Amino acid sequence: MESIRLVSREYKPEDTVVTVGNVKIGGGHRAYIAGPCSVEDEGQILEIAELISDCAHILRGGAFKPRTSPYSFQGLGEEGLRLLVKAGSSFGLPVVTEVLSEAEVELAAAHVDMLQIGARNMQNYALLKKVGAQSKPVLLKRGFAATMEELLLSAEYILAAGNSQVVLCERGIRTFSGSLTRFTLDLSAVPILKQLTHLPVIVDPSHGTGRWNLVEPLAKAALAVGADGVMVEVHSHPQEALSDGPQSLKPDKFRALAAELNALAQFLDGRSGGI
Amino acid sequence: MESIRLVSREYKPEDTVVTVGNVKIGGGHRAYIAGPCSVEDEGQILEIAELISDCAHILRGGAFKPRTSPYSFQGLGEEGLRLLVKAGSSFGLPVVTEVLSEAEVELAAAHVDMLQIGARNMQNYALLKKVGAQSKPVLLKRGFAATMEELLLSAEYILAAGNSQVVLCERGIRTFSGSLTRFTLDLSAVPILKQLTHLPVIVDPSHGTGRWNLVEPLAKAALAVGADGVMVEVHSHPQEALSDGPQSLKPDKFRALAAELNALAQFLDGRSGGI
Amino acid sequence: MESIRLVSREYKPEDTVVTVGNVKIGGGHRAYIAGPCSVEDEGQILEIAELISDCAHILRGGAFKPRTSPYSFQGLGEEGLRLLVKAGSSFGLPVVTEVLSEAEVELAAAHVDMLQIGARNMQNYALLKKVGAQSKPVLLKRGFAATMEELLLSAEYILAAGNSQVVLCERGIRTFSGSLTRFTLDLSAVPILKQLTHLPVIVDPSHGTGRWNLVEPLAKAALAVGADGVMVEVHSHPQEALSDGPQSLKPDKFRALAAELNALAQFLDGRSGGI
Amino acid sequence: MESIRLVSREYKPEDTVVTVGNVKIGGGHRAYIAGPCSVEDEGQILEIAELISDCAHILRGGAFKPRTSPYSFQGLGEEGLRLLVKAGSSFGLPVVTEVLSEAEVELAAAHVDMLQIGARNMQNYALLKKVGAQSKPVLLKRGFAATMEELLLSAEYILAAGNSQVVLCERGIRTFSGSLTRFTLDLSAVPILKQLTHLPVIVDPSHGTGRWNLVEPLAKAALAVGADGVMVEVHSHPQEALSDGPQSLKPDKFRALAAELNALAQFLDGRSGGI
Repeated sequence: MESIRLVSREYKPEDTVVTVGNVKIGGGHRAYIAGPCSVEDEGQILEIAELISDCAHILRGGAFKPRTSPYSFQGLGEEGLRLLVKAGSSFGLPVVTEVLSEAEVELAAAHVDMLQIGARNMQNYALLKKVGAQSKPVLLKRGFAATMEELLLSAEYILAAGNSQVVLCERGIRTFSGSLTRFTLDLSAVPILKQLTHLPVIVDPSHGTGRWNLVEPLAKAALAVGADGVMVEVHSHPQEALSDGPQSLKPDKFRALAAELNALAQFLDGRSGGI
Repeated sequence: MESIRLVSREYKPEDTVVTVGNVKIGGGHRAYIAGPCSVEDEGQILEIAELISDCAHILRGGAFKPRTSPYSFQGLGEEGLRLLVKAGSSFGLPVVTEVLSEAEVELAAAHVDMLQIGARNMQNYALLKKVGAQSKPVLLKRGFAATMEELLLSAEYILAAGNSQVVLCERGIRTFSGSLTRFTLDLSAVPILKQLTHLPVIVDPSHGTGRWNLVEPLAKAALAVGADGVMVEVHSHPQEALSDGPQSLKPDKFRALAAELNALAQFLDGRSGGI
Repeated sequence: MESIRLVSREYKPEDTVVTVGNVKIGGGHRAYIAGPCSVEDEGQILEIAELISDCAHILRGGAFKPRTSPYSFQGLGEEGLRLLVKAGSSFGLPVVTEVLSEAEVELAAAHVDMLQIGARNMQNYALLKKVGAQSKPVLLKRGFAATMEELLLSAEYILAAGNSQVVLCERGIRTFSGSLTRFTLDLSAVPILKQLTHLPVIVDPSHGTGRWNLVEPLAKAALAVGADGVMVEVHSHPQEALSDGPQSLKPDKFRALAAELNALAQFLDGRSGGI
Repeated sequence: MESIRLVSREYKPEDTVVTVGNVKIGGGHRAYIAGPCSVEDEGQILEIAELISDCAHILRGGAFKPRTSPYSFQGLGEEGLRLLVKAGSSFGLPVVTEVLSEAEVELAAAHVDMLQIGARNMQNYALLKKVGAQSKPVLLKRGFAATMEELLLSAEYILAAGNSQVVLCERGIRTFSGSLTRFTLDLSAVPILKQLTHLPVIVDPSHGTGRWNLVEPLAKAALAVGADGVMVEVHSHPQEALSDGPQSLKPDKFRALAAELNALAQFLDGRSGGI
């Protein structure tokens, strides 16, 4: 793939380690990012943060929400940012949130520990350049019809703008799959990306499947295939969530999942490095 | 499709007619939008505008270019806008150009006759809201993995923000099609959309196929299937184009195509309205 | 495309004309194939045949039905063949039917004028070799996830087995399209195929969309894009059809469609050969 | 999914265990099926069988090959069957081979321990009925554009014909993935299928990726996601293989992979049953 430069393994053979607050991702460090799809109110985000604080590494929560319909809940905006940061600092978790607009980037970067570019904005080049000019790490989600090359070139925009702290995230691609899953999680993307780039690669099995009861097996598969972490939606009352309830785990399910993933990670680390 | 409101046929049964300069699209009016992928220099855009001025209705040309790679030609920016407007006014053609960034919208809206949202930005909601707040008509291209509902809801963002002058554009979807075409042009989208919405629908067979020698048959098929117009890339020297050369028609080919389309449109108008 | 031989334009530059009974397809001859999805009983097939006999060229009707579920109606089998042939000969129409099994091929070939290979069997090589050994023309439908090259190589199996009377049929591909259409009709396949092969290419807008009210616009688009004919499902009582009712036209709708297609074909023949 | 009956968990809640020779698959038993794409000659198949005999459970090898082109190597036919059986019995491995034609089924069933239906024939209903009438277990591969429901209904054909010893196999679906992988391995299919059906489900990471260096991570992910085994192509001299060389592991690589999978399986069995 000749078109990539700064993100390529040829340019930098050793794994990049991205640091989010006090959490490392990549180069053998795995991280679990967890939290609700949207920050809904102070009680909600504090409750979730407390319940997952000893098993998640980074707290996620949307303040600015990209919604297909203009009439859906669009997030709490700046107030959502404030609540997310409060919840993270209360329980010792760095926080990540999505930015949708160039106008929000600097505000968000002033408060949170990591900026997320969502799948729908993977090729929003103005936004990529803007987050590339910040000093906070970036979580770049793969567009749901983006090739490996397109994902890497979007990351290249960020590195070319001066920010080399980028984590890639596979979150499912759009196929003929139909009604049983919203998307098809493309786990082969993980080893392919890790051959091509030095950047860490994580997997989002919540968006990637759209069904909470598929999150556990696919999170485990993500670690087994070589991912540097997972991003999981957690909500105390999924049936009342303002967005993405059907794919959210309850906190106790997430705690159990984290324990399973920790054991699997320990097992994988005990094996030698591949055949 | 319950989720759409302002764009739906239920809300407004009669066809919307969008007016771009002195050109009408929709409600029985068909328009041909033509011009180069990118404005490259004054001579280039003036030459093309002159050669197509009596057979195209609207001149297109990119000043801000969404490029997969940060190292590809990114467009002339504001200078490109100026040259496009000069070419259009020199030969009596209204002009359309793509905007990529919220920061560019007001500048572009001050100069051109129609703002284009490209496929990659179809779900860039900040940008949709911004063009929705302008008084210029908008050409909204379908994302290459967007469903009909998603396209209509993106248009709904624009109408909900106050701008009801929106033209939809099918430009090919991403499938397994492989190396013979870049995308699969989805012509069934045209009658489906026209059943669901009152907005005009046009087709871009240049991006939709990626090969100049498929543009003619698919442009004719687009009119036959009921489209309100076509958008075609035209370049005097396709092999030297800074972007999208392989899918561009030379001006004389476009002139011949326009004559074919005019004849076909006249034939179609002479038939009664469907079976 | 180096891998094709006998089917390629390089091997045989002039269009192949396939003859089905007294009907020609290809080389400027267009044909309309119409009839019910399944032959259901004598009254049904005779009624339909009579109603379309002066506007269709070939009568279709399934005797052996490929059904996704083993519990769905599987066709009348040999009795269906007999009824189809009776209906065709009663009203002067040659007939085509699908074969699913090697064991049925010789029986069917003894009775009908054309053998159809369905989309699900496009890569059933044993069946391709078997129809290649018959003296009846073959209608080969594109598999719903087959590339152009795979379709042409499946035709190559038939020609290599000795039968050069093959018509290709685009019938929709499987994409993310979702609930509004069963498949995405790929009309760009028509000009691509006609550049690569000398064989005739027709389009099936009934299976290609799954909705009767999309059949007319896409049938017209098929002729405009250069197809050598269309294949349309017709049923006198679609709501009672044992299979594929929602995509079937009533006979009077088909008669109106045929009149539209005749006028369009006359228009197209009056234009010179492309830009 | 109302349309499935005999294959459904509702009909039979407990896992089906399929027995191939002395090997069990399902209900907690995992199996590794390995061997070359095609049986090429006696030395080749005996060498591979010997080298993998203590780490594979079932030997695979194609005697009848479904090839896209009629001019590609089509397999050794009956002689290939004889050599495969000889290799299996020499080293204590039951054998599986693909059948393409109804005419081959009884011959193959007389010799081998398991019959395979390939992806291209997943909806070849005549063939499904024929293998359903045999007393040998069946390995049914998912068509590369087949939904879960279609795969299960194809299995339903086999069970309805009297044969309940069926193993399902995910082998990659066709998406826009492009040049980096031939297919997209859909690992979410595994837990979905295991919720819907009592039949065992295995994964083929060789066809599913098309690249030997992706086989290991995806085989491990397959076990982690809950598969009852894997099917892996192994060839002593991949660069000289008559088919599928680029996706084949050398025997020593397969041996190392089997050791990794054994350790992972032991780890997984030691954990409690899910969150």
